[in-house]
Amino acid sequence: MFNYPNGKKFNNLNKLIKEDKSINLKASRTAANRGMNLEESINLSNDFYIENNIALITKRPTPINVVKVDYSKGCKIVDAYFEKQSTTDYNGLYKTKYVDFEAKVTKSKTSFPLANIYKHQIEHLKRVLLLGGIAFFIIQFDFYDEVYVLDANYIIDFYENGDRKSIPYPVVKEKGILVKQGLIPRLAYLDAVDKLYFSV
Amino acid sequence: MFNYPNGKKFNNLNKLIKEDKSINLKASRTAANRGMNLEESINLSNDFYIENNIALITKRPTPINVVKVDYSKGCKIVDAYFEKQSTTDYNGLYKTKYVDFEAKVTKSKTSFPLANIYKHQIEHLKRVLLLGGIAFFIIQFDFYDEVYVLDANYIIDFYENGDRKSIPYPVVKEKGILVKQGLIPRLAYLDAVDKLYFSV
Repeated sequence: MFNYPNGKKFNNLNKLIKEDKSINLKASRTAANRGMNLEESINLSNDFYIENNIALITKRPTPINVVKVDYSKGCKIVDAYFEKQSTTDYNGLYKTKYVDFEAKVTKSKTSFPLANIYKHQIEHLKRVLLLGGIAFFIIQFDFYDEVYVLDANYIIDFYENGDRKSIPYPVVKEKGILVKQGLIPRLAYLDAVDKLYFSV
Repeated sequence: MFNYPNGKKFNNLNKLIKEDKSINLKASRTAANRGMNLEESINLSNDFYIENNIALITKRPTPINVVKVDYSKGCKIVDAYFEKQSTTDYNGLYKTKYVDFEAKVTKSKTSFPLANIYKHQIEHLKRVLLLGGIAFFIIQFDFYDEVYVLDANYIIDFYENGDRKSIPYPVVKEKGILVKQGLIPRLAYLDAVDKLYFSV
């Protein structure tokens, strides 16, 4: 059995296909593919990429500060708190390169707000770039049902030097690469990564 | 403030030095450096490597299956269980390469037992190698107070084809690279990685 840290467990790709289909069908009844959240979509896509030896990208588990464990009940955690992810949510290996990214959703029609990106995440991504890794954001504009891959340099630049506290939608549209949404993979975001970093 | 997912928080390298010194002094009263466990030693070393922009290697948080959260008490987790890490404990970026490793301690004098390495971890490391990453184990022989970096290929080979359920100590000594232990970094394991993968 294959069990990657996004919490999904499955035995083979068939189950993945089945899961994805059911979710997709359900979603198709509403607007586009909005039945699934961005994290689930990325995790399913990563499962596909892993199963097919295309890439090895995983979500870091949410860090939890464990205060108390009840050993009389088989190591049951009875007091704990969620901690903020101090790095980004995802990292891994693609085409021999280290990749690192954060995924964010916005409901805004006009811009991607930088408010929920933390300073230490920016520091982390700057280190990734400095050390020769690939760093980007996956940004979903909920209103348009569009997902973009945007190089981290733009975010870092806006974060540190921008007058605005957000990146205008037209900038994301121009500088980012639109991610193709489909059945399998749910989000073909590595095609967008190819265009940004591996084009000939 | 710098807060990486090993749970340590500190403001600058000075604090790190101070922490490391006190631990080291304490340890020197007993045998060698055994006052600190392997995970703590690696995490401190990673903090040093990150602070000095040498590498960006982090420990994946332990995955926890959260069953129940009490929202009346500020998101207190009241029912949860530890899950097995389904990948390896550490991954990151060094000299533009993706690196991935597992750290293990043995009390055996004669061999490194493979019993506590899981099949899915072996699958994970095979994928790392297939996709062009660097994969290894950091193995501590507690009895000798020695720490080695051993290429994952040896472990995979012994795991899948070996008659024995362990790797003899002389094999680890011959094929692995001994890690220099000191004050800062506590474990200079990237020097060993250099010798294995980046030698000219």
